[in-house]
Order: sequence, then C-alpha cells, then structure tokens
Amino acid sequence: MRAEIIAVGSELLTPYKLDTNSLYLTEKLLEVGIKVAYKTVVGDNREDLYKAIKDASKRVPLIILTGGLGPTEDDITREVVANFLKKELILKEEIIEKIRRHFEVRGIKMPDINIRQAFVIEGALVMENNVGTAPGLWIDEEKIKIALLPGPPRELKPMVENFLINELKKYGSYNYYSRTMRIVGLTESETEEKIEDIISGLKNPWINILAIPGQIEINILGRGKNSIEEAEDRVNEVFNRILERLKDYVFTLEKESLEEVVGKLLKKRGESLSVAESCTGGLLSNRITNISGSSAYFERGVVTYSNNAKMEILGVKSETLKKHGAVSRETALEMVEGIKRLSKTDYGLAITGIAGPTGGTGEKPVGTVFIALSTPQKSEVFKYRFIGDREKIKWQSSQQALYHLWKHLKNG
Amino acid sequence: MRAEIIAVGSELLTPYKLDTNSLYLTEKLLEVGIKVAYKTVVGDNREDLYKAIKDASKRVPLIILTGGLGPTEDDITREVVANFLKKELILKEEIIEKIRRHFEVRGIKMPDINIRQAFVIEGALVMENNVGTAPGLWIDEEKIKIALLPGPPRELKPMVENFLINELKKYGSYNYYSRTMRIVGLTESETEEKIEDIISGLKNPWINILAIPGQIEINILGRGKNSIEEAEDRVNEVFNRILERLKDYVFTLEKESLEEVVGKLLKKRGESLSVAESCTGGLLSNRITNISGSSAYFERGVVTYSNNAKMEILGVKSETLKKHGAVSRETALEMVEGIKRLSKTDYGLAITGIAGPTGGTGEKPVGTVFIALSTPQKSEVFKYRFIGDREKIKWQSSQQALYHLWKHLKNG
Repeated sequence: MRAEIIAVGSELLTPYKLDTNSLYLTEKLLEVGIKVAYKTVVGDNREDLYKAIKDASKRVPLIILTGGLGPTEDDITREVVANFLKKELILKEEIIEKIRRHFEVRGIKMPDINIRQAFVIEGALVMENNVGTAPGLWIDEEKIKIALLPGPPRELKPMVENFLINELKKYGSYNYYSRTMRIVGLTESETEEKIEDIISGLKNPWINILAIPGQIEINILGRGKNSIEEAEDRVNEVFNRILERLKDYVFTLEKESLEEVVGKLLKKRGESLSVAESCTGGLLSNRITNISGSSAYFERGVVTYSNNAKMEILGVKSETLKKHGAVSRETALEMVEGIKRLSKTDYGLAITGIAGPTGGTGEKPVGTVFIALSTPQKSEVFKYRFIGDREKIKWQSSQQALYHLWKHLKNG
Repeated sequence: MRAEIIAVGSELLTPYKLDTNSLYLTEKLLEVGIKVAYKTVVGDNREDLYKAIKDASKRVPLIILTGGLGPTEDDITREVVANFLKKELILKEEIIEKIRRHFEVRGIKMPDINIRQAFVIEGALVMENNVGTAPGLWIDEEKIKIALLPGPPRELKPMVENFLINELKKYGSYNYYSRTMRIVGLTESETEEKIEDIISGLKNPWINILAIPGQIEINILGRGKNSIEEAEDRVNEVFNRILERLKDYVFTLEKESLEEVVGKLLKKRGESLSVAESCTGGLLSNRITNISGSSAYFERGVVTYSNNAKMEILGVKSETLKKHGAVSRETALEMVEGIKRLSKTDYGLAITGIAGPTGGTGEKPVGTVFIALSTPQKSEVFKYRFIGDREKIKWQSSQQALYHLWKHLKNG
C-alpha cells in the first residue's frame, strides 16, 4: 500500500518553517511496508484542505494528516475530513472529561474552546493523547483510510507507536529493510569512486549517499517482493561488498557521531584526552563534551586564540611563532605537547589554522589547517587544506582531528 | 496569484532528506506578491508526477517544479510536463554547445547522456544555468504557468533571481511586507504574555513566533490589498507596539545571532573578552569564534572540565571546590576572576553547571548552572535552572552568558 502525508498548517507555507514530521512518519511507515508516494503541505483553509484530501484520495488508498487538531477556529482538519467523508461530527463526553482532567492536574480550568477537540468523526477510532489535549482519529474504510494526527512531534510520536502502526501493519504490501554506515577520512567523490561499480544503476536496494563536510553516510534501502528476508538478502549482499571496500573508514554501523564512537573507545580503554584549539575556537571540545559521560575521559581543553595565550598556557615558544607563524606544523606540535604536559592525559589533540574568510596568504591560504595528535608513543602533525566557509572549515578540522584519534584507537 | 511548489525526487520521499528549496522559493515569491498555497513532494515516477502536475493545475494557476532536470533516465520532469501540456520536446543545438563547453573548461568530454538536458519544451523560455548543466524552463500560457528549476540550490537560486522573479512580478496580486525581531532573556510564554493583547486574533499582519532554547524570533508578515504601503503600515504599526513592550530584550532587528551582535559591540568599543567554561564544554568559545573577525576581541578560552584544570589553570581554590562544589556561585566567581587575571581582558565570562543527564542531586538538580560575568567595574554571578537534554542545557547556558554581556554592553 502507498500513502500520502498531508501536513496542515499555514505556518508551514511561510519561509520560516518546514514540516519535519514527515521524515519520522516515512521511516515508521517503511518499517511496516508502506511507501510514501506523495507529501503535501496545505494551509489552514477549508477549501484548500478539502481539495488536497480529495486529490490524495484519488492517488493513494491511505492518507496521513498531521496538524490542525488544536482548539482554535483555525484548526479545521476534523471538520474538513468529516465533510469530505460525508460523516457527522459527534461530541464525546468521555473525551471532554479527559481534556478537563488534563487541565485540572495542571491547576487550570479547561477553556471552553477545547471542547472542539472532543468531536469525533462518525465511525472513527480514537487514538488517545497522553501528552496533549487533541486525540488522534483513525478511519479505516474499504475505499479510503485516513489518520488524523496532532502536529506537535511529542504528541504525534506516541500515538503512532502505540496505536497507528499496529493498525497499519496489516496493510503493508512491501517488505523494506535498511542498513547504514558512516564514513570518515574520505571525500564524497573518493567514496563514490571506490564503490561505483557496486552501486551503479542499482534500484533495489536503493543507495542514498548523504555527505556533510568530513563525513559520508551511506543508506541502503531494499525491498522484498514476497518476504522481508528477500529485502534483507538484497541489502546485506550490497552492504557487505561496500563494507569490504570501505572498512578502514567506516566508524559506525549505527547513526552515531564520531565523537560518540571515539568517546566509547576511550572509556573502554580507560584512557584520557585533552585538546588545544586555535582556529576551531572550542568546537572540538564542544563536540567531545556533547557526549554524556565525557568527563570520564576528557580532562580539559584550551582555546588559545591569541599568540599570548599559546605561549602563556601551552608554553609555545616565542621563536617558533616568529619563525614559523601561529599556523604551522611546529606550532601545532608545541601546542599538543603543551596540553599533554599540563593535563597529564594519554592523548592530546591540537588544531591551528586559518578558518577565514580573511587572514589567508599566498603561502597559507584560507583553509590551511595543521592537526597534531599526541599518543603515548609519539606526536604527529597532519596538514590539510579545507574548502568552504568559516564554519565548514572549523567543522572539517574538528572532524579530521577526531578521525586521527579514532584511527589510532581502533587499531591500537 | 497563488502558487504550488512541486519538488521532484525519490530521495525526498525517504526518511533521510527534506525539500528545503521551498523555504527559499516561498520567500522570493512573497517578495513579488505571490503566495504559496500548496507544497507537494513526488518521486521520480512518471505517472505520479503527471498526477501531481494535473492536480496542481486545477488548484492554482502557477506551478513551480524543482528537481528532475538531470541527465539520467530518472530525470523525468521535462518529459512529463511536455506530455501534460501536449507539447513537443525540441533538441536545441545551442544548449548542447553550452553544456559541452561547461565540461570542456573542466577538461572533460561531455558524456552523451547530458544531451537529454538540451531538450526544450515547445514554446518555453530557457533560463540559463551558469553553475551547472541543466537549463531551467519557463512556460507562460494563459491557462497555466509552469517553471522547471534544477534541484541543487546553487543552480536554482541564480536562475530565480536573474530571471524567474522578473517574469513573476507581473502576476503578483498581493503586496507583502515583513519585519523581524529577535529576543533574549525572556521565555516564549513570558514573551507571549507581554504582547498577548497586541497579537491576539491578528490575521493581517500575521504573527509568527519561533522559539529556540534561549531565543525568540518574532516575524510579522503583512498584506496590502492595493499597495505595498498598506502592508508596510499594517506591519509597522504592530511592530512598533511590540518593540515598545520588548525593547529591553530585543537584540537585533535583522536575522543576526546574539554572538554576532555582542561581537559588533565589543569591536566598536575596542574591548576584549575571555571565557572559562565547565559544563558548556567549549560551546561558548565556539559560538564567539564562529564570527569572522572575532580574534580582534576574543583573547582566549579554557574548558576546565576537571577540578584539577580549574585549580591549575584558573587558580580556583581547593577549599572552594571542597566546601561549595564545582557547581557553585563561589566556583563560578573564582573561574571568571581567574580567566580575567590570566588574559588581562576587559570582560570575562564563566559557566559551571550540570548539563546532565546524570550528575544531578536533590540540592543541585540537572540543569543547575551558574554564570559569572566580570566587567571592568565588578563581577556578578547568576543562577539558573534550565530544562531539557544535555545539548539544550549547554545551549541555554551559553545564550544566557552572552545575554548578560550584551545587556551590559548595550547600556554601558
């Protein structure tokens, strides 16, 4: 069975806001073998919504509506669907009671307008809302199936997982299976070149390559005609061939970040890390400390933006700065050895470079970055020339620093 | 005139990718008085796309298609639109030449498949692509107007700005005007409470309140029936009333970030800043150094994650840590005075707290954060209790730290 998702809300037709529920819904629908064929966004306008539902009903047998279930006059989804199906709206006392209690436990009297949310389309099943006030509705007719879900993700998600997905299971006519890998240390074109012969022309499984600066994610999505095993086989065959080619660069088979993977390795090994940053300005420390429990392995970081700070905190020599400059192999090395000496950690990382857009020279253009890794055995410096704006250069620098540490930890 | 945007591409129907071109297009269309009434996403499937175009043509007189203009067999937009309009596709020699040159200057022979991109729908105007190979097409018939734009934003945008928008101007039937303000130091509900009587029930201008942790953006979008002046008057009247109420918290009337505004103030005053972070782990330094030219005022930052680091780098006293703990007013104060002493800057900021999800206690639950600001006159500490996950607590902490500095700089 194929579906159309219709997101209702005038705010989704402004330059300010996108419908993001559809990504979540698409994933959940795929899990039960239902494919999204269309996504539509329409405003809080009776006539427009009516047309959207009518057109969708001719295109697909299943419509998932999100939004427009609130208590105000702009919330028209219930009414328009009832009108489209030529059904009555029935006021349910037990839902009024539930909404009333929702307000009561918060010490508030239920506003009268919320009574609107207790209207149910004749013949619809009610999906309880344990987070907010708007119940969802599920209409399962022979000709057309329509789900009405609230817009806020924290209300919509439990409804889908606790109720809707079980109803939809019986209509799943596809068998989908997907796997993911994330890659660091290769560019998008280097990655594609390595696996071109495997993925070229593939339709099932279908390959999606998502590149962000310094990271490639490969999603492999397969369909089985008769069974989920067929989908799994198709995906696994391609997955294993790709993994064999890229194994030196694949840091996770989940949706983990590189800082998460590096953190787990450090934790397992009982080792510690400190960092000294110049051009990344704290980004590397920030990423490392985004991981819960990072205090177990992250000892300290310094953002030595000025030359004085590099000399005073890290003991970088004035002659080094004069002779080679702040952006140099030599400075990176003294930074990493300084931070390790100070913090007495097993590993140190240091980054110095030119994030731009100004500050570049002929010899050291914008994007020139030196990354130093110090392990218990030795210190090494890697030179890069990144492309992009200031934030992209900062990001790639932090990503490559984590990459070098990951490579060492993985093999060590 | 009202429009429908149709984004074409099977990748936009996966859980991995959203159509973001529509935000840009919506803004540009509003500027010339055209309102987006529907947005649709459809896959690379002839029948589905045909139906989407047909349905759209019954709903609105203007269709903007993005994507599906590439050289592969999956790129079907040209063909399907020609089919829908019952028009021929004509091969244009001059476009082949242009594509051939595009490859030549890159030292590559044009692949044969790219010839597909030189087909033009009978009667369509060609929109040149100076970045990629796929030209855009503009069909301006009495009954229906259709634009075909390439999917990649860097190809689409110049085409819209250099060509399409001029064609569309003559069909703009609305007059739109919008203004923005960004607020810090108030929650969403505090903001709404302060201006409820102004915005309640307003339809024109229309108010959009976007809340991210620690920041509120208010967009005011007005429509003039007969003139742009009417739209401006409607917007400005509401804008000025809101601004009067919120002026102590409005940090920009543009789309600037708080770190950008703070940076400009420091630069103008010729003053300098250093920061000491614990729970924010480098986020504050990172945000400050995301601004180009920040080296003019940002001297250094330290991420003193461990107690040792707090004592060794900042001179926080062992007794303070023992008696009051690392998360305390006293520690925050010694941190900020330590970093100012070390770096000799005019201002210092320090943050220490519990970002969670673990580490909270009954007395100091997760989200407890102390923020210290040191100015040339005095040092002050502010206590917060933030709600949310680890990254949200980090973000709000950095935002409130910038807020206190901004408040001082603005009034000073």
